[in-house]
Amino acid sequence: MKFGFLGPPGTFTQEALLQVTDPESNELIYYPTAEEVVLAVASGEVDSGMVPIENSVEGTVNMTVDALGFETEGLVITAEVILPVRLHLLARAGTDLSGVTEVISMPHATAQCRRWLRENLPDVKITAANSTAEAAGRVAYEKGTAVAIGPNLAAQLFGLEVIKRDVTDHAEAETRFVVVGRDTPAPTGRDKTSIIAFIAEDKAGALLEILQEFASRNVNLTKIESRPTKRVLGEYCFFMDMEGHREDATVAEALDSLSTHVARLKFLGSYPRAIGRLDAERLARRARSAQARPGS
Amino acid sequence: MKFGFLGPPGTFTQEALLQVTDPESNELIYYPTAEEVVLAVASGEVDSGMVPIENSVEGTVNMTVDALGFETEGLVITAEVILPVRLHLLARAGTDLSGVTEVISMPHATAQCRRWLRENLPDVKITAANSTAEAAGRVAYEKGTAVAIGPNLAAQLFGLEVIKRDVTDHAEAETRFVVVGRDTPAPTGRDKTSIIAFIAEDKAGALLEILQEFASRNVNLTKIESRPTKRVLGEYCFFMDMEGHREDATVAEALDSLSTHVARLKFLGSYPRAIGRLDAERLARRARSAQARPGS
Repeated sequence: MKFGFLGPPGTFTQEALLQVTDPESNELIYYPTAEEVVLAVASGEVDSGMVPIENSVEGTVNMTVDALGFETEGLVITAEVILPVRLHLLARAGTDLSGVTEVISMPHATAQCRRWLRENLPDVKITAANSTAEAAGRVAYEKGTAVAIGPNLAAQLFGLEVIKRDVTDHAEAETRFVVVGRDTPAPTGRDKTSIIAFIAEDKAGALLEILQEFASRNVNLTKIESRPTKRVLGEYCFFMDMEGHREDATVAEALDSLSTHVARLKFLGSYPRAIGRLDAERLARRARSAQARPGS
Repeated sequence: MKFGFLGPPGTFTQEALLQVTDPESNELIYYPTAEEVVLAVASGEVDSGMVPIENSVEGTVNMTVDALGFETEGLVITAEVILPVRLHLLARAGTDLSGVTEVISMPHATAQCRRWLRENLPDVKITAANSTAEAAGRVAYEKGTAVAIGPNLAAQLFGLEVIKRDVTDHAEAETRFVVVGRDTPAPTGRDKTSIIAFIAEDKAGALLEILQEFASRNVNLTKIESRPTKRVLGEYCFFMDMEGHREDATVAEALDSLSTHVARLKFLGSYPRAIGRLDAERLARRARSAQARPGS
């Protein structure tokens, strides 16, 4: 199987991918944006793709949602992985914190560590990189007194040491990733279903009618978000996640009932709920054998 | 008046600020993150602050929402500005597109131009900067054949030429900015109101009850988004925007009625709806006199 992911190697997205994919028996292919990962699945260049979808430091989440919701047809979410956003200070062996003059990372990662940096490294130069992995690579290959801010995997792939753990200002931050593919997995009994409901015109009652269909069948919504569709003037839509699989009777009935209230319903997948925390041992083992190549 | 904004000078956020603030009669102070802008308003270091809140290339929107929703009390949105995301290729005078070897920008801006770059500048090096303004500054001050991707204002502030307009892949992208302050402006007849409804426990019916209170009074919701609060385990909340001012009778009644359905209601402001498109002439005039200093 070919798995695409938002690269380069050493990103949080690759960490998420290694949680669900063994690199020994699969081919890993990385792309520069989440949109390109989704489009590579759509074109058949890869079988599935791992992309961040919520609250990530690694990419624009709207880019994932737009690619899945508006730019492709027939793709579905087949799994989700939730990782805590853990960013560490990565340095070459022997580097002492007191001698650090420069911190390299992607701007969104640096922004999440701003308070820690101000209190602990107030005078360092903050240099931007295109990804936390690029930052780690520069620290590994360029001589100097720079350190990188990045995830564990970046340290492992570039042979760096973690000289200070967890330098983010908000310890509770986490990122939700999804696997995008073509085939809906069978029900497991602890599933989620994602849809987009497109509403033809700005009628105040549409969402209320939709929620009543779910509530009357005790289908619990876990997420709801309104968005303009940007395709048809005045059209808007709701991204919704609910508990259950579309093969569960209550979910199936609720989805059927929506057709009278919406202009169009786009099914985005039924898939097992995230298993939760990172398995550090499995990740370390897989990281040692992970080889990835760039996508075309 | 002192106005804070997400800097450095030359960002989209400063463009938004210059739409509503005359730099000749006010002091402009910039901060490295949206969170720090909001905290500077909370501490009284500035009177108001301009921050991106939705779909921006310039910053993590969750950072703004979290700062306003969870980290501060008593602050309100006093105005909103919506700008199209227009990114151009900025170069020193006399630069020819065919001689460009390097493109500098912040990663989220580069990601939004990936397709254009692949088709028009396939072999250039993509270098990261912490902001589009930093990218423009490097092109202005470092010798070489690099160009920056950034907004108009960055070209004006750094004396660069726009050698190619609108290089983003999705022309329809726009960013919503808000002014954060302390005092709710009087009703204008075309206002919006923003709230956060905190729900104590995961009860499927809470949102439905809330929407019924709005629908029965013909209060139109323009945005709804669920979020975990990350503060109390199991607690979640809804960010909602609606048409109208909290001094309008129907909005006031609807908000009053919510108290029986929610654990807590946080008022985030009643303010005039965005006036729409950028006034290019006003912006150009104000950009010429804009001086800003960094925040402490």
